[in-house]
Amino acid sequence: MNLRFYNARILTMQEPITVLENKELWVEGERITYIGDTGDAHKHLVDTDKPLPAWDREIDCKGNLLMPGFKDAHTHSAMVLFRSCADDEPLQGWLEKNIFPVEAQMTGEDCYELTRLSCLEYVSGGVTAVFDMYLTPETILDAFTDCGMRNVQVSGINNFGPAPEVMEERYLKLNGKNSLSSYMFGAHAEYTCSLELMETIAAMVHKYKAPFFTHNSETLTEVEGCKQRYGKTPTQLWADLGAYDFGGGGYHMVHMSEEDFAICKEKNLTVVTNPASNLKLASGIAPISRFLKEGIPVAIGTDGAGSNNCLDMFREMFLVTGLAKVKDMDASSVDGLEVLKMATVNGARAMGLTDSDVLAEGKYADLIMIDLNQPNMQPLHNIPKNIVYSGTKQNVVMTVIAGKVVYDHGRYEIGVSPEELYEKGNAIAGRLFKA
Amino acid sequence: MNLRFYNARILTMQEPITVLENKELWVEGERITYIGDTGDAHKHLVDTDKPLPAWDREIDCKGNLLMPGFKDAHTHSAMVLFRSCADDEPLQGWLEKNIFPVEAQMTGEDCYELTRLSCLEYVSGGVTAVFDMYLTPETILDAFTDCGMRNVQVSGINNFGPAPEVMEERYLKLNGKNSLSSYMFGAHAEYTCSLELMETIAAMVHKYKAPFFTHNSETLTEVEGCKQRYGKTPTQLWADLGAYDFGGGGYHMVHMSEEDFAICKEKNLTVVTNPASNLKLASGIAPISRFLKEGIPVAIGTDGAGSNNCLDMFREMFLVTGLAKVKDMDASSVDGLEVLKMATVNGARAMGLTDSDVLAEGKYADLIMIDLNQPNMQPLHNIPKNIVYSGTKQNVVMTVIAGKVVYDHGRYEIGVSPEELYEKGNAIAGRLFKA
Repeated sequence: MNLRFYNARILTMQEPITVLENKELWVEGERITYIGDTGDAHKHLVDTDKPLPAWDREIDCKGNLLMPGFKDAHTHSAMVLFRSCADDEPLQGWLEKNIFPVEAQMTGEDCYELTRLSCLEYVSGGVTAVFDMYLTPETILDAFTDCGMRNVQVSGINNFGPAPEVMEERYLKLNGKNSLSSYMFGAHAEYTCSLELMETIAAMVHKYKAPFFTHNSETLTEVEGCKQRYGKTPTQLWADLGAYDFGGGGYHMVHMSEEDFAICKEKNLTVVTNPASNLKLASGIAPISRFLKEGIPVAIGTDGAGSNNCLDMFREMFLVTGLAKVKDMDASSVDGLEVLKMATVNGARAMGLTDSDVLAEGKYADLIMIDLNQPNMQPLHNIPKNIVYSGTKQNVVMTVIAGKVVYDHGRYEIGVSPEELYEKGNAIAGRLFKA
Repeated sequence: MNLRFYNARILTMQEPITVLENKELWVEGERITYIGDTGDAHKHLVDTDKPLPAWDREIDCKGNLLMPGFKDAHTHSAMVLFRSCADDEPLQGWLEKNIFPVEAQMTGEDCYELTRLSCLEYVSGGVTAVFDMYLTPETILDAFTDCGMRNVQVSGINNFGPAPEVMEERYLKLNGKNSLSSYMFGAHAEYTCSLELMETIAAMVHKYKAPFFTHNSETLTEVEGCKQRYGKTPTQLWADLGAYDFGGGGYHMVHMSEEDFAICKEKNLTVVTNPASNLKLASGIAPISRFLKEGIPVAIGTDGAGSNNCLDMFREMFLVTGLAKVKDMDASSVDGLEVLKMATVNGARAMGLTDSDVLAEGKYADLIMIDLNQPNMQPLHNIPKNIVYSGTKQNVVMTVIAGKVVYDHGRYEIGVSPEELYEKGNAIAGRLFKA
């Protein structure tokens, strides 16, 4: 699509972070081709020796804000199935009683439909890309692709699932399948993998010189268990096995040792923090200000809807800074602007989406429009801080991925109606929870 | 107005808390006159010997949920002026540098317009009543009344404001001014009141046998300072002075001693918790599970937009339970249903709004409609838990106060347009922050 946005405020998320006023942004095909003054737009055409694009749509932003879409850098999308079906319970019982038996019954088709259901929540909340770990990456990738969503699948390999050969096959088959999707090596977690499996994974990471992601140091129990089993923390263990030799990172990383911080720096790892899940499952509060102090990049994920229970990056952003402030007992801890970088730029870079990180000419048009004419944004003192400290998904009025409008003022353009997805989701829940 | 809601799910918030399916709810004038099966509705008329009401409006709820509106039990509404103008700063400097000098310039008219601006946020977020403490209760009460919002003004008396006689005059004049509004005795906080002033307040509380509310034990500095000044905690001090002899409660109550818990029980106080503000200003995490264990009622407030920065009870609800879980390191701590009671029933009772606590025949029609056909509510496993754990203000599609529809699917019916209020709010900000 060729889209012309005008009368726009723009937060490109390029440094230094400031809001540009009264600008144009052009999209041709999947990419951004111009950001600048309306007055200079035609000069730009002359400079680049191009005709005026044939616009499919010209959008008057009325002073509202364009910014990069949010990157949900850790989620299990199809777990919308488990939303509010197991709350206020301790984690281990919750997994064993409510999750594992039902997951054992889920088909690839179930994952497809439930992932499409999750896409409604993502695009209406301004999420343009997700880093998804779940049961059937093939059908999940198809679901995101069919909805027009950018997605990175990550292996959640463990002792109970497919063999390492399947992971390698997926790596080769799913990477390059389409321009919206990719696949990365990963593992569920140390505590669900045998040492042999972990060694195999590390060898594959070396074979392809690829980054590696896993649930890491989410709970104290996990860290203590790993120390008992191997005499080291999960971060040390994976590092010693070589799994982190080409970068990557950890999901959660709540309980960190001094040596863990050093490993994160040395291996150039990204921490993907999941504050709402860490509260709801009583896992703890991650040491975000320490990561920042060490120069370790932090990205943000919602985790799955079984443990959150929503896929809402606004909730996460407020929590990242709010929890840091109360953990450090310092109201100046973790500035809101840092949080906005985590939710956009840092997520994209961790996921290998280096063309979706900021708004700039040549980058993918993965962007959202924030309605500033809503009460929680007024008066207009400081727009970036408003987004972090008082924003909600209601402020998202348009979501564009790879130049395609997938959400527009309450209307979904993802190839299927919400009603159909609600019906399918409830039917799947009815079938699986009865079983 | 006479309103007929049909095809409704209803969460009355009467015990035991369950969702009624496929019901009708009738409103005649300001009050609810019927809740029950559609089939029984006409029998109800025969039983009560009444004709069918002449409906001003019949509303097909399409299976969506009616529930009591949220009670924001501690806020400073006109502080929307300070939204995002002083973030990521330590509390004391923030107050002295950014807040106090500007407040000194604010007029009653400014407070009126800024309070009307806040009403947009309240009604679109499902808040039907607020417990408001701020500079000019007379104009603030008028603002709420003109917008159709139920409001309880509470005195924020301190060493720097009007004399105690003014508080008494307001108590006599503002109570009974109209059916939407009332006024309660209160004080800003121990640390802004002289002992003589506190004694005068306590005497007035005794004269009128009235409950008393104040900021109490918000920060460790405040509690330590009070102990140095008087050899006791703020809760002990106010109790010893007799200010709590007719009930009331404290805003925040984060840092509590064993004796403080005992006083809360003995004096039948309500704790009004403000979790987002307590995070953002690094005040701490309140001991919610302990309050529940002691049988001390807890209500929920947003605090002002200078320290939150939004007036969103959904954010607060998730935080109340999420923070309790991480504080106690127990995922079963503070059940979501308890939180829903805090945000509705307990708030109403603390504010003296005993006719706005639950949905029942004879109670005020202070209610909201929650859209269940949104992605964050699907699949429909457990509606009350969905509201607490995944709900957002976007799910609120209708807000009714005293039988009047004040918000309806994005349209405000509060006697003034959002655009006019945004313009006025920004003009006030421009004038006061330039000064």
